Amino acid sequence: MFDFTATYTDQYQLAMAQVYFENGHKNHQSVFDYFFRKLPFEGGYAVFSGLQDLLEIIENLQFDEKDIAFLKKAGFNEGFLDYLKNFRFRGSIYSVKEGDIVFPTRPVLQIEANIIEAQIIETILLNLLNFQTLIATKASRMRLVAGDRHLLDFGLRRAQGPGGYYATRAAITGGFDGTSNVVAARNFDIPVSGTMAHSFVQSYDHELDAFRSFAKGRPDKCVLLVDTYNTLASGIPNVITVAKEMEEKGQKLFAVRLDSGDLAYFAKESRKLLDRAGLDYVKIAASNQLDEYVIKSLLEQQAPIDIFGVGTNLVTGNPDSALDGVYKLAESNGKPRIKISESLAKVTLPHKKQVFRIKNSNGQCVGADAIGLRSETQIEEMFHPFEPYKSMKLQDFKQEPLLHKVMHNGKSFLEKQSLKDIAAYSLSRLAELPIEYKRFNNPHIYKIGISEVLKEERDKLIKEYKQLS
Amino acid sequence: MFDFTATYTDQYQLAMAQVYFENGHKNHQSVFDYFFRKLPFEGGYAVFSGLQDLLEIIENLQFDEKDIAFLKKAGFNEGFLDYLKNFRFRGSIYSVKEGDIVFPTRPVLQIEANIIEAQIIETILLNLLNFQTLIATKASRMRLVAGDRHLLDFGLRRAQGPGGYYATRAAITGGFDGTSNVVAARNFDIPVSGTMAHSFVQSYDHELDAFRSFAKGRPDKCVLLVDTYNTLASGIPNVITVAKEMEEKGQKLFAVRLDSGDLAYFAKESRKLLDRAGLDYVKIAASNQLDEYVIKSLLEQQAPIDIFGVGTNLVTGNPDSALDGVYKLAESNGKPRIKISESLAKVTLPHKKQVFRIKNSNGQCVGADAIGLRSETQIEEMFHPFEPYKSMKLQDFKQEPLLHKVMHNGKSFLEKQSLKDIAAYSLSRLAELPIEYKRFNNPHIYKIGISEVLKEERDKLIKEYKQLS
Repeated sequence: MFDFTATYTDQYQLAMAQVYFENGHKNHQSVFDYFFRKLPFEGGYAVFSGLQDLLEIIENLQFDEKDIAFLKKAGFNEGFLDYLKNFRFRGSIYSVKEGDIVFPTRPVLQIEANIIEAQIIETILLNLLNFQTLIATKASRMRLVAGDRHLLDFGLRRAQGPGGYYATRAAITGGFDGTSNVVAARNFDIPVSGTMAHSFVQSYDHELDAFRSFAKGRPDKCVLLVDTYNTLASGIPNVITVAKEMEEKGQKLFAVRLDSGDLAYFAKESRKLLDRAGLDYVKIAASNQLDEYVIKSLLEQQAPIDIFGVGTNLVTGNPDSALDGVYKLAESNGKPRIKISESLAKVTLPHKKQVFRIKNSNGQCVGADAIGLRSETQIEEMFHPFEPYKSMKLQDFKQEPLLHKVMHNGKSFLEKQSLKDIAAYSLSRLAELPIEYKRFNNPHIYKIGISEVLKEERDKLIKEYKQLS
Repeated sequence: MFDFTATYTDQYQLAMAQVYFENGHKNHQSVFDYFFRKLPFEGGYAVFSGLQDLLEIIENLQFDEKDIAFLKKAGFNEGFLDYLKNFRFRGSIYSVKEGDIVFPTRPVLQIEANIIEAQIIETILLNLLNFQTLIATKASRMRLVAGDRHLLDFGLRRAQGPGGYYATRAAITGGFDGTSNVVAARNFDIPVSGTMAHSFVQSYDHELDAFRSFAKGRPDKCVLLVDTYNTLASGIPNVITVAKEMEEKGQKLFAVRLDSGDLAYFAKESRKLLDRAGLDYVKIAASNQLDEYVIKSLLEQQAPIDIFGVGTNLVTGNPDSALDGVYKLAESNGKPRIKISESLAKVTLPHKKQVFRIKNSNGQCVGADAIGLRSETQIEEMFHPFEPYKSMKLQDFKQEPLLHKVMHNGKSFLEKQSLKDIAAYSLSRLAELPIEYKRFNNPHIYKIGISEVLKEERDKLIKEYKQLS
């Protein structure tokens, strides 16, 4: 849908790039880590999303003529602009799989490229992955509480502009069943759903006429909106009339939708009226400011709701509007690099790395990831990176490497997966995670450890930098 | 940048449209109001933004071949699909001006079109206007507290995907001076700004080498990032060395940037060190999780910060992720319509309407808008719509009509304005608003009144609908 050009970036990437270019650093190889520091929603895990989109965009990223003309006007030098005219990303990317369960402060992606290419793609990488991972995580939380009930994305109208396009994709990754967003459904092959608006009912003189007309025109999967005037006094009775008329034609009304008032109360009362009329097959859909907490509460009250339509709180990740993902230098021109901070927890990890998920013999996660150098294939013992006295022997556990090479020399070799498959994969990964990491209140913290070699490398660098300053 | 096709909509718009089409309602004229119910950020006003983008998109909105093929697969009928192939929006739009100060529960736009066209554009209209108005309002709040200090948008990396593109535009509408977002700067003619990243400093063995190299390559408006290792022990001293070297070449360092730690403390200490070295012309820029409250607090502490770079909280509107704008039917096929609700405050207003801003002889807003029928050019007395005993005589006040026709027969006749002009207009409108509506805590509520004719029309309809249900 969207054409991204390479100016979908921050100005400082280009400012730094020009300096690198002029200083002859344009072939300096660099390694960057993408990771985030804090889980959203005070939750215990996140669902990684956005990789396939990102790789497709990076493969095709170029500066077009308008870009070059603009940058010229903005004062960039001719020699550098000539370089940008031929810009393509030719680096490598290692990544966890889309749909994987991820945790803070360990690499989710590692990017290896010359320093200019690595900087230019930073902004779009952060922009896409931070957002899709936020929304996939939000969707996953609703899937956790909704069981096998139907979850539909109705959010486009309240999405942050065209962010809504990727929000829909991420919602499916995280476990939603369908969307009202037609263009996203078209491009990502997502089941598309829709009911009717209040305006439809209002545009007729009588609610019953509106229902009849809609049922006639859209008899398949027909959903009638019952709260335009009075849900129990007019909406449901009119639905019953129409559903009976449909039965005479051999048709079955699919569902009613509640969009206001106390959803638990109205769902229960509507269910009673429908059942009493012999319409126990008519499902109840509910919408209106839903999120994982409201869905959980409705189901705890045994509200007989079969379908949840979720808008704003899904597609914007409300109350958390962003994942705080960052892109930090781990190697420059062959040398390991760290970023020092007053807080030890914010010191980054140097070198090309691998992240291992530690599992028991049943394939269940044991609550810790270990980070080593990429050259390490197995870690004997892992150390808490910020509390040196803690360590854990790993000989009795399986170690699953999470980072896989997905791009080489600017070409993706990710096998194109359907969103449905990614969502199924994500669900299978979530099943490996013990329940204490999935609860909403004070979830257990998924641990992190680093290998002895990485620990030594990092401590050496900290010492060097401390002497420098 | 983006190509929007007419499937950038909710499925139910198309489902309803097919029913209208088949029932021969496709020429039924409808009138819809766009308004919102609640001000964001617990604030006293909102800044309207997004109109120019919306009209451009609507003028060009069509279903392309991929759309038609997808809708065919999704089960829409051939006859209706033929209609969609020739779909263009041919209606009229009345709107407040971009940059205008707006308040809840009164029309910001009014759309007149046949019911199918009006429904199909609903989603994109809500999507764009809700988001840009949210962000312009957020930006305006920061402008209020920042005085004439420089405000820069650094948010693209944390934006909700491509929502960041329009966030930047809205930020400028609301009073920001520039952006790091290159493609938005390119397309909307916005001043573009950028400094350097920590990775730049890290990529050199010594901070001083990094600063020298950057100052050599980008001497104009050069900004050096001072907190990679130790702001006061190494960052500022190295800046002083480089700034002195620049002076010898007849150059002047523009600014330093602080991006972590206690910004008030580091700004003050950095200012002292710079001044002591004779570098009182070097400005101080600050970034890191800023919002209107942090900026206000920093300035109350007299932190000597000249430039604020704002990211996440600007471009996502955090903590409010969406404006709750809605699109409600006011007329259908010549008949006035309202939406009934249990709460009287949620009952909508019927008919084609005009909104008047009530002003005193000095051109200052008096704290109330009056809504009448479009045929009323002057309102004698306005009534509180939900508390019938309150009214206000208007003979001593000026009445400025806010809704202007901006589109006729699908063609926009909005004069294309620069964002700079829109921002200046917005600032002039904000100046007409008394200070009690601009404060952050419990701002005064901007009143609403309706004309006697509108009141009678609405009350008559309420009575009719109550009898119906």
